[in-house]
Amino acid sequence: MTTTSSAVLVEPRLIDLWDFSIPEIGPDAALLKVEATGICGSDWGPYNGTWMTELPPLVLGHEVVGRVVEIGADAMHRWGVAEGDRVVVEESIPCGTCRLCRTGRYHMCDPLHTRDGLRYGLTPASLGPHIWGGFGEHLYVHPRSIVHRMADSVPVEQAPLFIPISNGIRWVERDAGTRIGDTVVIFGPGQHGLGCVLGARLAGAGTVIVVGTRRDKARFEVAKALGADHVIDVADGPAAQQVAELTNGELADVVIEVTSGSATVLADAVDSAAVGATVVVAGSRGMAPAIGFSPDTLFLKELTLKGVYGHDFLSVRRAIELIESGREPLEKLCTHTFPLHRADEALRTLGGETDAPDAIHITVLPDR
Amino acid sequence: MTTTSSAVLVEPRLIDLWDFSIPEIGPDAALLKVEATGICGSDWGPYNGTWMTELPPLVLGHEVVGRVVEIGADAMHRWGVAEGDRVVVEESIPCGTCRLCRTGRYHMCDPLHTRDGLRYGLTPASLGPHIWGGFGEHLYVHPRSIVHRMADSVPVEQAPLFIPISNGIRWVERDAGTRIGDTVVIFGPGQHGLGCVLGARLAGAGTVIVVGTRRDKARFEVAKALGADHVIDVADGPAAQQVAELTNGELADVVIEVTSGSATVLADAVDSAAVGATVVVAGSRGMAPAIGFSPDTLFLKELTLKGVYGHDFLSVRRAIELIESGREPLEKLCTHTFPLHRADEALRTLGGETDAPDAIHITVLPDR
Amino acid sequence: MTTTSSAVLVEPRLIDLWDFSIPEIGPDAALLKVEATGICGSDWGPYNGTWMTELPPLVLGHEVVGRVVEIGADAMHRWGVAEGDRVVVEESIPCGTCRLCRTGRYHMCDPLHTRDGLRYGLTPASLGPHIWGGFGEHLYVHPRSIVHRMADSVPVEQAPLFIPISNGIRWVERDAGTRIGDTVVIFGPGQHGLGCVLGARLAGAGTVIVVGTRRDKARFEVAKALGADHVIDVADGPAAQQVAELTNGELADVVIEVTSGSATVLADAVDSAAVGATVVVAGSRGMAPAIGFSPDTLFLKELTLKGVYGHDFLSVRRAIELIESGREPLEKLCTHTFPLHRADEALRTLGGETDAPDAIHITVLPDR
Amino acid sequence: MTTTSSAVLVEPRLIDLWDFSIPEIGPDAALLKVEATGICGSDWGPYNGTWMTELPPLVLGHEVVGRVVEIGADAMHRWGVAEGDRVVVEESIPCGTCRLCRTGRYHMCDPLHTRDGLRYGLTPASLGPHIWGGFGEHLYVHPRSIVHRMADSVPVEQAPLFIPISNGIRWVERDAGTRIGDTVVIFGPGQHGLGCVLGARLAGAGTVIVVGTRRDKARFEVAKALGADHVIDVADGPAAQQVAELTNGELADVVIEVTSGSATVLADAVDSAAVGATVVVAGSRGMAPAIGFSPDTLFLKELTLKGVYGHDFLSVRRAIELIESGREPLEKLCTHTFPLHRADEALRTLGGETDAPDAIHITVLPDR
Repeated sequence: MTTTSSAVLVEPRLIDLWDFSIPEIGPDAALLKVEATGICGSDWGPYNGTWMTELPPLVLGHEVVGRVVEIGADAMHRWGVAEGDRVVVEESIPCGTCRLCRTGRYHMCDPLHTRDGLRYGLTPASLGPHIWGGFGEHLYVHPRSIVHRMADSVPVEQAPLFIPISNGIRWVERDAGTRIGDTVVIFGPGQHGLGCVLGARLAGAGTVIVVGTRRDKARFEVAKALGADHVIDVADGPAAQQVAELTNGELADVVIEVTSGSATVLADAVDSAAVGATVVVAGSRGMAPAIGFSPDTLFLKELTLKGVYGHDFLSVRRAIELIESGREPLEKLCTHTFPLHRADEALRTLGGETDAPDAIHITVLPDR
Repeated sequence: MTTTSSAVLVEPRLIDLWDFSIPEIGPDAALLKVEATGICGSDWGPYNGTWMTELPPLVLGHEVVGRVVEIGADAMHRWGVAEGDRVVVEESIPCGTCRLCRTGRYHMCDPLHTRDGLRYGLTPASLGPHIWGGFGEHLYVHPRSIVHRMADSVPVEQAPLFIPISNGIRWVERDAGTRIGDTVVIFGPGQHGLGCVLGARLAGAGTVIVVGTRRDKARFEVAKALGADHVIDVADGPAAQQVAELTNGELADVVIEVTSGSATVLADAVDSAAVGATVVVAGSRGMAPAIGFSPDTLFLKELTLKGVYGHDFLSVRRAIELIESGREPLEKLCTHTFPLHRADEALRTLGGETDAPDAIHITVLPDR
Repeated sequence: MTTTSSAVLVEPRLIDLWDFSIPEIGPDAALLKVEATGICGSDWGPYNGTWMTELPPLVLGHEVVGRVVEIGADAMHRWGVAEGDRVVVEESIPCGTCRLCRTGRYHMCDPLHTRDGLRYGLTPASLGPHIWGGFGEHLYVHPRSIVHRMADSVPVEQAPLFIPISNGIRWVERDAGTRIGDTVVIFGPGQHGLGCVLGARLAGAGTVIVVGTRRDKARFEVAKALGADHVIDVADGPAAQQVAELTNGELADVVIEVTSGSATVLADAVDSAAVGATVVVAGSRGMAPAIGFSPDTLFLKELTLKGVYGHDFLSVRRAIELIESGREPLEKLCTHTFPLHRADEALRTLGGETDAPDAIHITVLPDR
Repeated sequence: MTTTSSAVLVEPRLIDLWDFSIPEIGPDAALLKVEATGICGSDWGPYNGTWMTELPPLVLGHEVVGRVVEIGADAMHRWGVAEGDRVVVEESIPCGTCRLCRTGRYHMCDPLHTRDGLRYGLTPASLGPHIWGGFGEHLYVHPRSIVHRMADSVPVEQAPLFIPISNGIRWVERDAGTRIGDTVVIFGPGQHGLGCVLGARLAGAGTVIVVGTRRDKARFEVAKALGADHVIDVADGPAAQQVAELTNGELADVVIEVTSGSATVLADAVDSAAVGATVVVAGSRGMAPAIGFSPDTLFLKELTLKGVYGHDFLSVRRAIELIESGREPLEKLCTHTFPLHRADEALRTLGGETDAPDAIHITVLPDR
């Protein structure tokens, strides 16, 4: 075998299967046979042409699990893995030497610092060795990659959940500082919001409340299965008011805002927060302002608004251990799988353009 | 002497001298002969009728220093002070038993919790014993008050600075987490912004940058005397751009926003912040939204926005020790003093309605 | 009824039932009809005459739950409770105004600060109104007390568990900083060690290991029921070695030392800790040095040794909520109850002097 | 030039000048012309044969400043330096991929993880390219090294102070959490203790107290020049007692123990600490136990004992910026310099074996 097939985003909303030469693997790199790649909300912008439009053609996909099929001697030593091992790869390819990398914040290492701008799922296919994304049979593992082992016992479609679960752990526990007995309110029951439900329950939250809309009925059920105590539909009135009722007016110690595209949700999130609470901002408004929100609220209630962007090393480790433990009903999150040649359909399912209203975690399995 | 005179805000913008009976002092309370009361930015709203308009008639003033002229036995024991001692009194009269009070956050104790709604400078004069504000000859010291000793050696007009200085210490060091060598940018060179300059320098900031406008020339000079390294005039372009130039593009580790009435400053403050920075929100927009600010910026740079409201016990202690040490050129902050019968003029000077463009800290001295 | 009966420690190891007059209750105090008082390891020293020997005669007991039978108007307002309510009372009677009290650390308020030296279970019965301990029909609730409501639904012998459980939450989560997935090793499976097992599991510990001896077989079973993953018997070799085996050499992120009277356990605890770990010191050696421990180990592994002493407000709140939830098998902790006239036997059971090797939580129920 | 001269520790207490071939420099490494290397207390053990005796022959020295004389293309890019630049090199050569390295704690990366066991100043000279220590004309800069630029304007003998100053910043501010106004007591006025004086003053300590002995008269003067408020001689009685007198019985918020070889100092340090204080343990007892210290003290005062080992990335950066600023009287620390052929005398001066009782920072300058 000298070539490998990848689903290339040729231009916005156009995906085609291309063949690439399998690259030579140097002493400090590796080649992965991809087993599964999860689809993340952040794949939608490039696919749809509303974000990073200058990048295509490129291979999307950065929630990757696979087998090491070739690895250099230095890389074996550095990563502690060998041919045949199953691994997951973080999406960052950080420089390793800047202040952010040296102080445990490598996930914020600016691709500009690295001068090569590499990042899995967002690197143009024109740049050799081309196979920089998970939606393909193989992935090139760059020497600067961050590689973790994943046990063979994990069902293939659950393995990519290390991303939403590590985010949930980091955002809810480390960033928000959730403590035993806290009331945690999570706006948005998508895969990341559900990762936050897990994070909240693991952090010992006393009450976990998930906020969604009419179309989230199936997601609400999964939230409950993962440990949510209450679900709130904003069609029934402002979440803040419902949270007040559920908490005898005490409101939330921690609020996680992880919705997409809503300009009004932040105001509702802030209103749901108790004096001294932390509101984590992980959701996006497409750079629009937050309607109905005045920063004066922040000092009147001494609130902390904390922007978060992805996971760190330890939260990924902990997420992998959790997945490997088999303790959680993670199969409920894995609603859809697609073979490689249907990657386009997989992405449109994420975007709600197919008839799959209850989709949560969608995975592309190149082998099927 | 059986009566005492106070400057009563009868209705917005109307102040009159009223006489009140000097109250009986029970075993757990005290009576203070006021030496000086500083004017705080938060006095302006009630004075001007734009905030808390239902309160008058009331005696404003909550940056109080005075002598204990009468004190009950229990209060002597509890506060460790005696007749003749000079003390300052925090503005909070917290319940002492709620969760906020029990966990070191008594300054956020909701006056509603106390059911009596007491707070120095914001309690209606109709409620006995009436003399709840610093703009008067005497102050009633309620049993729930928080009282600190202040050395006799401190010049009388400097004593009320314990408020802006304790705020500066808490906001810059404890809340923002400023560390040795950090770059700190402070938007707003009023008395609180200058307190933050002190806080930043004491916390070991490597570079302190103060942002203001054309009318802040004199305040800029004071900022430099207190240790600011650079001053920036926003008339010369966005502060963020000037901060970038001063820091070789590294931007600020900590940003303090303590301006008043500007809807656009928060966006400039956020743009001045480096990846992972903390932006303290102490300034007010009159509940208006922040123009030009999208919360998406928070996660793109993993910023923390921290609303802060006043001081805590230890920061007040530290501010008092600092004032008593005489090490800082605090006289530069004390630009204006007024006798009690000119309290109205003092307030209008704060509001910029008199010919005193360079006013920083204004004090009412009832004895003069 | 004008008198009430209490079990008075007349001299070390001599307990007698005495009658006291029921006191007048002022506007800011209350009287409690005691329902149950748990026995704490710290009761043993005064009982046995090895600690605080100058105090008797006194009424021991400070894990108190009871009904409010009389309460003053001010106290009702301050504590938010009324006659007939069930409450627990913290053992501290702090001054409320010192730096420790004002910054959330009232449990360390030195009784010397209060000049009256009050503390439930450690105040001489010679001081009116005499009934300062839980081993009696009634307890006087001093105005400075910290009172929490407890739901009627909680089985009476479980209610005093708010002490070991709040300690477990504070020590494991707040003090040690346990994070999701951490390995937590707990030396000592007594009631406090088991409270720490709960704290560890609630904090999301990945692996909880309990260390004990041959005589802890029954306690080990309870530890497992509460969520411990492994139990270690030091008769089988140093715990550190067994921890290393159980963790693939990674050792513990958090170690809790809550044994009693062992001079060698700290060295084993420190050896069980990974680089950068925290070792909580809650156990006692009777002021003896720690055999086999060199502080040099602390810098060689960058360890933190954290001494802890009791609970704080929020951990008590959380413990009460947990007990009220009925989610945990707390009945397994409650091994023995005694009526008031057998308080002496209850204390000797704690001390291992009766035939009850498996005793964990022992409660005195004055009504039976 | 094809060879370079280094001072080799051939066996304990025997140093000889050896010539080594100048190595080929690969694309990811560099060669440094050493300008100066400071002597650290940790050099004494290997020199004297009481620690790491299996290592010689080796080149000691790890506080290195020098000029880049050759550098590979990859290294230029990664470190952002070029030929001719002046740099300092941290002593760690960490693996870069383990959990400690990925979470900002690379200075604790076990050389065993790297399998090659490299560390500047502690790597056998038998391992090519041999020149692993600062006491030589040249230093090989390994690809995994951590390199920082240092301005040309800094006097050569002050440049190696980045080690004691970064330690002082990290230990006093980051590890101990010193806050504005705190009382900080530092046991041991050597170069690291004096670095802690700087750290304490920069962190805004209200009172800095340095503890030493009769032989520290000159060091006490330097401590005062750097900002210490008081010095204490333990010949005048226990430090704890003197600290109590200086602080009106309030004792210290932070204690730093950075002495060498004293088994009794920790007990005095702990006695000097106030309730809730942090005691940093950086000093060494040669693995002996701490005489007179019972861990029970830790819970009775809720003390934290924090072992610290060196600096981290940001503290080194801040130390360099401070040195470059020229604001501090650092020349007072630089008491002795020696040329390379007198490296042995330099080390014996550190050990107090020459007639230089007032030595603080000793530097070897290979060029002289």
